[in-house]
Amino acid sequence: MPLGEFELIESYFRRGFPASAAVSVANGDDCAGLMLPPGEQVLTSVDTLVESVHFPVDAPAEALGYRSLMVAASDLAACGATPHAFTLCLTAPELEESWLAAFSAGLARAAADCGMALIGGDTTRGPLALSVQVLGSAPVGSALLRGGAAAGDDIYVSGSLGDARAALAYLHCESPADSHRELLQRYWYPRARLVLGQALRGIASAAIDLSDGLAADLTHILQASEVGADIELQRLPLSSALLAADEAPHNTALAGGDDYELCFTAAPSQREAIAGLAHRLALPLTRIGETRATAGLRCVDGQGKDHPLPSGYRHF
Amino acid sequence: MPLGEFELIESYFRRGFPASAAVSVANGDDCAGLMLPPGEQVLTSVDTLVESVHFPVDAPAEALGYRSLMVAASDLAACGATPHAFTLCLTAPELEESWLAAFSAGLARAAADCGMALIGGDTTRGPLALSVQVLGSAPVGSALLRGGAAAGDDIYVSGSLGDARAALAYLHCESPADSHRELLQRYWYPRARLVLGQALRGIASAAIDLSDGLAADLTHILQASEVGADIELQRLPLSSALLAADEAPHNTALAGGDDYELCFTAAPSQREAIAGLAHRLALPLTRIGETRATAGLRCVDGQGKDHPLPSGYRHF
Repeated sequence: MPLGEFELIESYFRRGFPASAAVSVANGDDCAGLMLPPGEQVLTSVDTLVESVHFPVDAPAEALGYRSLMVAASDLAACGATPHAFTLCLTAPELEESWLAAFSAGLARAAADCGMALIGGDTTRGPLALSVQVLGSAPVGSALLRGGAAAGDDIYVSGSLGDARAALAYLHCESPADSHRELLQRYWYPRARLVLGQALRGIASAAIDLSDGLAADLTHILQASEVGADIELQRLPLSSALLAADEAPHNTALAGGDDYELCFTAAPSQREAIAGLAHRLALPLTRIGETRATAGLRCVDGQGKDHPLPSGYRHF
Repeated sequence: MPLGEFELIESYFRRGFPASAAVSVANGDDCAGLMLPPGEQVLTSVDTLVESVHFPVDAPAEALGYRSLMVAASDLAACGATPHAFTLCLTAPELEESWLAAFSAGLARAAADCGMALIGGDTTRGPLALSVQVLGSAPVGSALLRGGAAAGDDIYVSGSLGDARAALAYLHCESPADSHRELLQRYWYPRARLVLGQALRGIASAAIDLSDGLAADLTHILQASEVGADIELQRLPLSSALLAADEAPHNTALAGGDDYELCFTAAPSQREAIAGLAHRLALPLTRIGETRATAGLRCVDGQGKDHPLPSGYRHF
């Protein structure tokens, strides 16, 4: 007899998941309820991951569980939100218990890393797809938005870029080299920069998470803020694993999505605060360029010449 | 050239959708923001509809758009929530403009009927599926939950039952009879009982929406409230369209899902208030039985004999 929806939730989506003080109506009713701190607004985002579009067929279930929450939580990070809770819509052709056990273990680990409670969801039969909705909050007026950059702001990125894109070449390796394993770790186990996002409230003027690639995502900030930008190719932070594996690492860093680092802008007066933050979080925050009043994104190479920009990823 | 995600949102998911005073960060940033009235908690729910599981292949796009929001908003109704906003994850193998135009028109009409703003979402390529997350609120402590029924409470249902289930037989009719058309209307254009749900705050002791069928859904209330119930088959409210079309209309009313009416319990002292509410909303609220201290659901027919219960719909 197949596992029923209720047994499934009881067996795999309750135990091992963290609680949240914000949850006022728990999983199991028609709606879940959340109480926010006074004066805070709800911040919410949703991401769908579809098999063979966003992850390969036969993706490891534990990694898929971890990644599906982190990818969605990354949008909370980009807005500087305090994370609270999430819902999961799981569509699967059949539910094997071994797959479910691994998937829910990965999901629970991501939930613990983010401090988010699982407050509801839906399981349906169909082609494998995951939709994760995240709920967080921030004091009214303090959310980081795309449209806040002013001409003359510095542009920063966290961590290193391009690793997740470079990992795509090794997704099906039976026994990848150590440096390739590092790239694969970045692809399967992204870390939503939630602590950074919250720390950037009042410091950053605009922010976005890097899901579609630096060039495409930074362009969203520029368009929303009605400014342009100059960035320097040589300043892009590259990991040694990327340098070892990729023949065109700078292009991969410019175009590659799925890193889930943050890109943000800040007035030059914030340089000291940002350096202090990088130190405190033990996370590189690299200044890669600056915004300007005239529209457009320009990238210059080490010789001061224009470097061609990749076209952004288009979902359709 | 295919329609890009950004053009798609601009063309089909902005214009014609209602605004909401609660929206503090609009569609287009990493997160959407909502400000709730002071002292209210967030209430949220999510529903996924998958082609050929929850709706037939070649479902009319306008109806699908309408139904996908109403089905999700029905969970807000069940909790007595004030509706505010929703997000949409649309997964589709390809995006035809004519399909999108019809789908978004239906969705916008449901959004206007519910008074809900579209605040975000996601479009991905894949087998047709829709995931709708709804966000509402209610004063802390006033949400209607499944677990509040006490022994001796009356059990009510709104509207009529079984129509949507009976419609399944006519989904592919080229020119259905008028009475079948009424049933099809109930299937494709369910109405989330949002006004009723909010009016039942402080009156109902427990509530649920009827998505899986009366017997299955009422059982959720009974289990969460740790009570049993006796209901009378002859009291189930049946439409004339159902009586005309179905040879076993009472069984269809007991077992049939997709009506999205509310089932709720209330102390007998609330009968006058509930009759007044039915009058004010011009919506039948029918008392079909009462809860008791001992567990289990019993249905008796016109001769006072036990009527067999259908087994609840299992998603897997």
